[in-house]
Amino acid sequence: MTVIATGSSLGLAAKLARTLSQDLIIIEEKSFPDGEKYVRVPQKIKGKAILVHSTHPPQDERFIQLLLAIDAVKNSGASKVVVVVPYLAYARQDKRFMEGEPISIGVILRSLQVAGADAFITVDVHNPSSLDEWLNIPHLNVLPIVQLAEYFKGTLHQPLVLAPDKGAIHRARAIAELLKASYDYLEKRRDRTTGELSLLPKNIEVEGKDVLIVDDIISTGSTLMLAAKSVLMNGAKRVHAACTHAILASSALDKLYNAGVSDIVATDTIPSPTSKISVAEPLANAVSSLL
Amino acid sequence: MTVIATGSSLGLAAKLARTLSQDLIIIEEKSFPDGEKYVRVPQKIKGKAILVHSTHPPQDERFIQLLLAIDAVKNSGASKVVVVVPYLAYARQDKRFMEGEPISIGVILRSLQVAGADAFITVDVHNPSSLDEWLNIPHLNVLPIVQLAEYFKGTLHQPLVLAPDKGAIHRARAIAELLKASYDYLEKRRDRTTGELSLLPKNIEVEGKDVLIVDDIISTGSTLMLAAKSVLMNGAKRVHAACTHAILASSALDKLYNAGVSDIVATDTIPSPTSKISVAEPLANAVSSLL
Repeated sequence: MTVIATGSSLGLAAKLARTLSQDLIIIEEKSFPDGEKYVRVPQKIKGKAILVHSTHPPQDERFIQLLLAIDAVKNSGASKVVVVVPYLAYARQDKRFMEGEPISIGVILRSLQVAGADAFITVDVHNPSSLDEWLNIPHLNVLPIVQLAEYFKGTLHQPLVLAPDKGAIHRARAIAELLKASYDYLEKRRDRTTGELSLLPKNIEVEGKDVLIVDDIISTGSTLMLAAKSVLMNGAKRVHAACTHAILASSALDKLYNAGVSDIVATDTIPSPTSKISVAEPLANAVSSLL
Repeated sequence: MTVIATGSSLGLAAKLARTLSQDLIIIEEKSFPDGEKYVRVPQKIKGKAILVHSTHPPQDERFIQLLLAIDAVKNSGASKVVVVVPYLAYARQDKRFMEGEPISIGVILRSLQVAGADAFITVDVHNPSSLDEWLNIPHLNVLPIVQLAEYFKGTLHQPLVLAPDKGAIHRARAIAELLKASYDYLEKRRDRTTGELSLLPKNIEVEGKDVLIVDDIISTGSTLMLAAKSVLMNGAKRVHAACTHAILASSALDKLYNAGVSDIVATDTIPSPTSKISVAEPLANAVSSLL
C-alpha cells in the first residue's frame, strides 16, 4: 500500500502515511501557460494506492486536479485506487431545491468514479446518503467527533454545546456526551421592539456558561458571528467554535475573533490556521476497514 | 428543439439558435461566497436540448459549470441533451507522453458523458480520434476550414499558406486549395554563426508573398511570433494569422501585433477581439445531422 499526496493535502497525507506505516509519494503538479492543469505520478506504484486530495477553494481547479490524479495513479501500476477527499466540495447541493437545478454532488461523485476511483473516503460530508445515492464503489464517511471532543476535554467551565440548527443537533449531542456537557440547538429570534435578529439556544440559558458551537463547515461564518454576539450579549462566559471544515471565506476568521469568539478550532481536512486537530487517525482506520 | 446557452458562449449560441430557427434559453449562473458554482435552467424544456458552453480559461470553472448544466438540462424535461463545446479544454493531453501522466481529455470526456450528455459536438479538436476513443455517444468534430478560407478570399497577394509544423499540414493544404494558393509547413532553423533560431517554410521562398499562418489554437502565440519575425526578415510582404481557437494567454495579441503580424483572425469558439468568423453555420449543420 502507498499513500499518494498532492499539494492540496500534503500535511494530512504525510500524517496518514505515518499512521499507516506506509510510504508517501508526492504527485508533480503544474499549470500550463493557458491555465490547464497537469499532474504526474513520479514513479511506478505497487499494490494499493491511497490518493489523498482535498477540494477546498479553488474548488474547481482542485477537482480537475483530482480527476487527473486518479487517472494517472490508476495507470501507474496501482492494483486499486482508494480516493480520500478530506473535504468534498459541492456536497451541500445534494438535491434539487428548485426546479432546473443540478444535483451538484451527484455530478461530482459520478465523475470521480468514472475517472477510476475503486473506493472512496471522505470526512463529515454534508449529507452522507449522497455517497450511497451516487457511488457504486465501497465508500465511507469519517466523523471526527471523538477528536473534536478530545480537544476541549477539561478546558470548559459549565460547558454548553450548541448546534447551529435543529437538523445538526446529532453532532452537538455526540460531542456533549463525550464532554459530559449539556447541549441544545440555536434558534433565530427577532426583538419585537428593535427588530434586531439574535441566535440563541432554544431551551437552555447561556448565562455564565462556556458555549461551544459546533458545525460541519465554517464558510463565511455569518451564522456563527450572529450566534457568538447573541450568547455573549446574554451573559455567556466565553464562546468557542469547532468545525470539521474551515473554509473561512471573506475574512471569516478576522470577523469571528472580532465578534468575540475566543477560540476557533477545525480539523486538517482543509489546511488553515485553525487546523489544530488531525483526522489522520480516523482516516487510517477507514482505509484499513475498506481494504 | 431548444438551444440553451450559458454566459460562456452566449453570442455563438444566439447565432446558432437563429440559424436553426429555434428558441434560446439562457441558464442562470452564480457563484456562492465560498466559490462554488451554481447553475439553473429557468424553465421547463420540451423536446431536444442543444446546450452550448465553451471551456476556455478559466477552464476548470467552466468545465464544472458545464457538468452542472448538463445535469440540470437533463432533468428539466429535455428528451435528449446534445452538448456543444465549441472549444474543448484539455484536448492536447491526449496520450501519456511520459509514464505517470493522465490522459486528461479522456477524463474530461468520460465526465461529460456520465453527467448526462446524449450526443457531443466540438470544433477543431486537437486530436479527433480522442472522441472515438473516450465517448460511447454519437459525436462530431466540426472543421471551420471553409469559413476561414472565405474570410481571406480575394484579399491576399501571392498567398502562401503555412502550417506551424509538418503534422498540421492538412489544415494549410485544405485552406490553400480553397484559396488557390501554395502551401508549406514551417521548420526550425538555427543560424550557424549567430545561433539565432528562425521558423521558415520548408520548401518555398517567402519573398514578396502574403503569408497566412494557420493553426488550431493560438495560446501564448510564441511559435507564431517567431514565424512572423522570420518570414518578414526574409522578405515576406505581410503576415496574417488564422486560427480556430484564440486563447491568447499572456498578452499574446499585443506581442503578435508587435512582431509584425498584420491581421489575426479566429472563430467565435472562444469570444475574443479576433473572433471575426462564426462557426454557427457548421455547428447548425452538425446538430441537424446528429438529430
